[in-house]
Amino acid sequence: MEFSLKDISTILGGEVVGDETEKVNTISKIEEAEKGSISFLANPKYESFVYSTKASAVIVSCDFIPKSQLKTSLIKVKDPYSSFTILLEEYNRISSLSKMGIEQPSFANDDAVIGENCYRGAFSYIGKNVKIGDNVKIYPHTYIGDNTTIGNNVILHTGVKIYNNTVIGSYSTLHANCVIGSDGFGFAPQADGSYKTIPQIGNVIIKDHVSIGANTVIDCATMGSTIIEQGVKLDNLIQIAHNVEVGENTVIAAQSAVAGSTKIGKNCVIGGQVGITGHIKIADKVNIAAQAGVRKANVEGQTLWGSPAIDHRLSIKTHTIIKNLPQILKRIEELEEKIVNLPTT
Amino acid sequence: MEFSLKDISTILGGEVVGDETEKVNTISKIEEAEKGSISFLANPKYESFVYSTKASAVIVSCDFIPKSQLKTSLIKVKDPYSSFTILLEEYNRISSLSKMGIEQPSFANDDAVIGENCYRGAFSYIGKNVKIGDNVKIYPHTYIGDNTTIGNNVILHTGVKIYNNTVIGSYSTLHANCVIGSDGFGFAPQADGSYKTIPQIGNVIIKDHVSIGANTVIDCATMGSTIIEQGVKLDNLIQIAHNVEVGENTVIAAQSAVAGSTKIGKNCVIGGQVGITGHIKIADKVNIAAQAGVRKANVEGQTLWGSPAIDHRLSIKTHTIIKNLPQILKRIEELEEKIVNLPTT
Amino acid sequence: MEFSLKDISTILGGEVVGDETEKVNTISKIEEAEKGSISFLANPKYESFVYSTKASAVIVSCDFIPKSQLKTSLIKVKDPYSSFTILLEEYNRISSLSKMGIEQPSFANDDAVIGENCYRGAFSYIGKNVKIGDNVKIYPHTYIGDNTTIGNNVILHTGVKIYNNTVIGSYSTLHANCVIGSDGFGFAPQADGSYKTIPQIGNVIIKDHVSIGANTVIDCATMGSTIIEQGVKLDNLIQIAHNVEVGENTVIAAQSAVAGSTKIGKNCVIGGQVGITGHIKIADKVNIAAQAGVRKANVEGQTLWGSPAIDHRLSIKTHTIIKNLPQILKRIEELEEKIVNLPTT
Repeated sequence: MEFSLKDISTILGGEVVGDETEKVNTISKIEEAEKGSISFLANPKYESFVYSTKASAVIVSCDFIPKSQLKTSLIKVKDPYSSFTILLEEYNRISSLSKMGIEQPSFANDDAVIGENCYRGAFSYIGKNVKIGDNVKIYPHTYIGDNTTIGNNVILHTGVKIYNNTVIGSYSTLHANCVIGSDGFGFAPQADGSYKTIPQIGNVIIKDHVSIGANTVIDCATMGSTIIEQGVKLDNLIQIAHNVEVGENTVIAAQSAVAGSTKIGKNCVIGGQVGITGHIKIADKVNIAAQAGVRKANVEGQTLWGSPAIDHRLSIKTHTIIKNLPQILKRIEELEEKIVNLPTT
Repeated sequence: MEFSLKDISTILGGEVVGDETEKVNTISKIEEAEKGSISFLANPKYESFVYSTKASAVIVSCDFIPKSQLKTSLIKVKDPYSSFTILLEEYNRISSLSKMGIEQPSFANDDAVIGENCYRGAFSYIGKNVKIGDNVKIYPHTYIGDNTTIGNNVILHTGVKIYNNTVIGSYSTLHANCVIGSDGFGFAPQADGSYKTIPQIGNVIIKDHVSIGANTVIDCATMGSTIIEQGVKLDNLIQIAHNVEVGENTVIAAQSAVAGSTKIGKNCVIGGQVGITGHIKIADKVNIAAQAGVRKANVEGQTLWGSPAIDHRLSIKTHTIIKNLPQILKRIEELEEKIVNLPTT
Repeated sequence: MEFSLKDISTILGGEVVGDETEKVNTISKIEEAEKGSISFLANPKYESFVYSTKASAVIVSCDFIPKSQLKTSLIKVKDPYSSFTILLEEYNRISSLSKMGIEQPSFANDDAVIGENCYRGAFSYIGKNVKIGDNVKIYPHTYIGDNTTIGNNVILHTGVKIYNNTVIGSYSTLHANCVIGSDGFGFAPQADGSYKTIPQIGNVIIKDHVSIGANTVIDCATMGSTIIEQGVKLDNLIQIAHNVEVGENTVIAAQSAVAGSTKIGKNCVIGGQVGITGHIKIADKVNIAAQAGVRKANVEGQTLWGSPAIDHRLSIKTHTIIKNLPQILKRIEELEEKIVNLPTT
């Protein structure tokens, strides 16, 4: 994709200083930009780069007046940072729409219902009784199990694996090699020490505007549904166990795990490598620091640290004291010595 | 799959109260059931749902007498919960057997020996000199490397990757995108600070009735075999390093990791996000709490908590004290003050 | 592959004691070896096995004199251990080179430029404008996104997923189902509590002699590049976030995570399940123990333990004290009692 500076200034409602016909095909940081790319200057701290950058054009504020000669063209706008964001989104939108049509060989059962403007990459697989909306992009090596329903404007990146009976809303993005709907980890102990598999017949429901990271796993429910509510963002390599519910707009960073049947509230922010035990409720707006081990979080808005997790203010205090334990132990020994040397009544 | 209530009561040795010819096609929780599904009532606490449920039928105890009018049919049995479990298993058995035959395109070397009643999904790959037993279900995008041997009644879900020379027993299930037999992480440090790869020529042996979770990785041995014994259940996103052995009927929850050459005993129960160091032996029947970091666990039946992991009783005590450290520090300060104010001899 | 003992003694510059024409086809530990395999004896501790081994041949030191009768042939060399290593490498080299040609069906855009002696497995996918060097082995189910460049002698194991615009150097190995270049986890909070996706338009650059473990994920940069420098070894199930840089010859064990924009120095050794926070610099030659949580590591050569991570010497001390906290608390109580019983001035 190539755009002239004129095209871009039109999108942004800006003004070109330089050659309007010059073409750019990528977007870069001002200090790393090469010829053919466009960048931006929002923070005055970075002004020096505008004189040395190799970018073909830089988006700047309308009131920017260069202090020395420029090798780059300028696009003057009201708010360079938000203009740049608009540009990024436009670039992304056009990139993602560019995939279209069916590559061969691919596999789809005859009864699949597939909407308009979809992309089906080579080696993608669509099972029985599957319904897929419009503008869905199914990258190569994706597997969509039987009876699955997918909304509109969904992107399934390469290698995504979706088990039977899954429901996925609209405007969601699933990253490479994530697994949706694998069996919950349920085994009944037997008298001889072995385990019997408990059949897992539930499913996974993913609502709209959800993002699922690469290699993340969401197990199906034993019965009923594991539910990822609207607007949830899950990072890479996360484990969501059977019958978990993750509330609206909750964000979870990489490698965290939520054990079976736990319900997480809305608008929580959960760090990386966090472990949350099973069968509990996490309140809304809870913050959990990275690596915490959570057994209880029922106070809305609380912030938790540590394993086992406690209120972060207490956790900061205790960790400061822990670092001083060798000195504290010495103080106790001194006290003991002094006491011994005291006259007794 | 559809069954009449008569069919089901025959399987369960029960008695239908209602229309025997009514059909059901799924199994649900009593409070979430819709028309066409069958549910159960075992716990009297849930009795109220039997009057409001939309299920077409509910499995109840033979001595159940409704207190008001029912909209659902009943199947009366001796033990509703175990009857329900039988039904779940039957449902699961029929579902998993339903996959059969070869979808195209798929790939198999000419010398592959494949048993009866197998399923080979589209885009599945079978390398050289592979032997596969009866009733093996190979889902799409599965890769089976050269010289691999697989027993009977094995399910390889979509995207499973099996490196060369792997041995898999019977009645085992491998979930989506797990990796079996990737190179052990072995590198020899060189004088210049770089590392030389140590060739990994061993394999992985997985015995009977094993379950491997989605996106779990089991590395091959440097030489010899990494061994997963009979009845082991591994959850999702687990790391099993080279030359590890996991003993019979040991269960490991999600995101745990076992470092190289460690041998884990039988009937251990290991929580999620646990880390176990390399080159140690874990005794039989050891319990390890989630997020523990284990360097030693040689006492049969012991329970470990924390990182570094210690006996759980001691761990509970120390964690209670840690939460009180700010107050304890104050007590020490008070003591110091008092001591200073005492008359000296 | 089969080799006569004569072939092997020629490779190693050794001397055969026994039947030079005997053939071996695998390499084993001396205590586990079967007929048809070759083993080695370097450590005198294991000498007893040389009399009982079923190996067809054992590599021994030139000055080895058997104390009783042998059932195995010998290959006498100067240094048995390093000879054995040479043999392993040769075996590995031949194995990896044995894959060649194009299996069908596979997919490659017309404009792909692919070097000599490459292997392209069935169901592998090559996007637009991709450049691939010589001796590259692309296993089945591998996905190579548009505009990606790959050097020489690279191995992409089955199921590797490479997003658009990735750059991979020479002599690198990527293990099964790892994901390179997935979107960085970037979302801007909105006034209504929802999040807006920040487009991720950067890429991943992997230099030469890098090893990436199975199911590991490396996110692309928001802008610019996530960079894995020469000689880096990453184990399985690791998370490398957007804009991270990992310095030359740094080694990271399984399930560790590095958050966004952090720069790790050269020659660091990082244990398993470590978490490193975002936007920090880790100095060169830093050692980080397993399960540590690192917020700062700016002293070259330091060793860190714990979460939050502190200097390992202090950490050992504090952990010893923590285990003794119940006794220490008792000592404080005794002091308090004694103080109370003292006469006051």
